[in-house]
Amino acid sequence: MGKLLSDEYYMQIALNQAKEAFEDDEIPVGAVIVCKDTIIAKTYNQTEKLTDVTAHAEILAITSASAYLGSKYLNDCTMYVTLEPCVMCAGALYWSQIGKIVIGTSDPKRGFISSGVELHPKTEIIGGILEDECSALIKSFFSNKR
Amino acid sequence: MGKLLSDEYYMQIALNQAKEAFEDDEIPVGAVIVCKDTIIAKTYNQTEKLTDVTAHAEILAITSASAYLGSKYLNDCTMYVTLEPCVMCAGALYWSQIGKIVIGTSDPKRGFISSGVELHPKTEIIGGILEDECSALIKSFFSNKR
Repeated sequence: MGKLLSDEYYMQIALNQAKEAFEDDEIPVGAVIVCKDTIIAKTYNQTEKLTDVTAHAEILAITSASAYLGSKYLNDCTMYVTLEPCVMCAGALYWSQIGKIVIGTSDPKRGFISSGVELHPKTEIIGGILEDECSALIKSFFSNKR
Repeated sequence: MGKLLSDEYYMQIALNQAKEAFEDDEIPVGAVIVCKDTIIAKTYNQTEKLTDVTAHAEILAITSASAYLGSKYLNDCTMYVTLEPCVMCAGALYWSQIGKIVIGTSDPKRGFISSGVELHPKTEIIGGILEDECSALIKSFFSNKR
């Protein structure tokens, strides 16, 4: 059976999470984890609010999804994340053995891909879903800061 | 003014934390964060207990130290960790801008160094403190599993 809803549908929910971060004056990154057509985690970056560099959307989503499933491993899950994960988050995704990662927009400067970090060999990666919207939100945040 | 206590002193406390992990049947890694001769975080790996791949000793220590200091950044801090950090933890240490990392024993398979991941340019790294004891504890854990 195929999945019921599109990648764009779930990425829009991740983007809505990123907008929550934006409103809190956090770098606007949102993440959603889906397992068997059910959203089991919805998070956004909270490094400022929690005073914690580890509180990226992806780390919070992994912790939340694992608590929900009662499993350290997320083999049957897909993460939708508005920005390409950093090295820390890619390392966490590696350990989680997550089935699939769907990325909104790339992060050539801080993303894991240019760092040469590899995900788990079982993890599928897709990019460019709602790319323009995800990119525009990040750019808007940083242009407000200058 | 130099520091009051030696690297071996603080690494022994990290090693005692790792032994707590061992007793809980967790991969035995311990970490301590020191700021101005005061221990502000003492943690050990709890990935099994917390059902969370992100619950490495280093991540828990960064979160704890930042909460104590009320600062995301750990520039004036030193982390003592019994095993070379993985890619995820190295990424977290990068974001924390931690001043210094003192490592017990290396992890050629899963450590950040062989992955080519770089720490923050301001972070000093020292290795091989209580190396034999830190290495023996890890080896003992995995030999028990076979």
